[in-house]
Amino acid sequence: MTQHTHTELLETLHECMTACNHCFDACLGEEDVKMMSACIRLDRECADMCNYLENAITRNSPFVAELAAACAKICEACGNECKKHEHEHCQRCAEACLKCAEACKKVA
Amino acid sequence: MTQHTHTELLETLHECMTACNHCFDACLGEEDVKMMSACIRLDRECADMCNYLENAITRNSPFVAELAAACAKICEACGNECKKHEHEHCQRCAEACLKCAEACKKVA
Amino acid sequence: MTQHTHTELLETLHECMTACNHCFDACLGEEDVKMMSACIRLDRECADMCNYLENAITRNSPFVAELAAACAKICEACGNECKKHEHEHCQRCAEACLKCAEACKKVA
Amino acid sequence: MTQHTHTELLETLHECMTACNHCFDACLGEEDVKMMSACIRLDRECADMCNYLENAITRNSPFVAELAAACAKICEACGNECKKHEHEHCQRCAEACLKCAEACKKVA
Repeated sequence: MTQHTHTELLETLHECMTACNHCFDACLGEEDVKMMSACIRLDRECADMCNYLENAITRNSPFVAELAAACAKICEACGNECKKHEHEHCQRCAEACLKCAEACKKVA
Repeated sequence: MTQHTHTELLETLHECMTACNHCFDACLGEEDVKMMSACIRLDRECADMCNYLENAITRNSPFVAELAAACAKICEACGNECKKHEHEHCQRCAEACLKCAEACKKVA
Repeated sequence: MTQHTHTELLETLHECMTACNHCFDACLGEEDVKMMSACIRLDRECADMCNYLENAITRNSPFVAELAAACAKICEACGNECKKHEHEHCQRCAEACLKCAEACKKVA
Repeated sequence: MTQHTHTELLETLHECMTACNHCFDACLGEEDVKMMSACIRLDRECADMCNYLENAITRNSPFVAELAAACAKICEACGNECKKHEHEHCQRCAEACLKCAEACKKVA
């Protein structure tokens, strides 16, 4: 793994965590919260895993590949759920998640 | 701080994390999710902080008092919100949170 | 996944986190810290991942299998490293890690 | 709290986590690991707390002030320890920690 790729991955993970947490926060403030329940749940999963992986990468963890494999699955699931909703925060979250899923797959 | 108190605190934190996460999960499955939005948000805050503090205590962190002070505030806020709702998961969560807030205050 | 298995897994993860963090703390206090450097690094990885997975299981995460797969690898690596050292904290940690690796593999 | 301040704080926390984790990793590879044991322990505390606070800020946690108060104490302790060591990773870590301690105090 080159340092360059990790720099990019760290940025992608950070954007994904930020988008997921913003979406989590915004979904809880929507009129129809019930419709967003899967989104809220997956936003938490995805933000937390991206956050965890960022920490692991910067400490030079020997398990980046294993963690990235799990993270890719979570990002993909979150991106696919968010994609279904028209809210701007969901659309932006979907984009960040699907980009992050691809980046994670490359190191997995 | 005696080891005995930490053993008790660890158990209390663990029960609180479990109750908050169960409440988070159950709230997202309720008919009226909107009414539970503050609860969902606080359950995440509280579960994550209790989980963090458990890790910190077991690694003999020098910052248990500072972290417990923050945890006490979070537990209290979550307990007070959950207390308002009649769902069994909320009532049990409120009880676990308020017990944990007291335990955290003692080491803060 | 039965609820019973999760109860057992949660306990096993908790024991493993506790043993790893105790080993991390004790290794940093050993006379020959240099010899323990791989152990210190892996103890952190393993404690943090077990802690993360505990949180995920109690919130009924849909990704327990993926996270447990990563956790199993980390527990195994930590257990195999700790096994090499005669310190009681290392031997106890090795035992907890290898038990946890098996438990994680069953849900992965 | 203005959004601008949070953007700056997030960046400062991220730099601090990165510097602490790099220092943790580098300390474990030094010739005299024993001399770095306090540094290794505090690097973990500080990286983990900065990482936790980043997540909390981006999810719009109502407890940023409480968490930042704890984080400021941890950053300060880590910065003061790292400052004692001449290694470049320690000096850079000290700088990042003390900057982050100030930033956290402003929101605490």
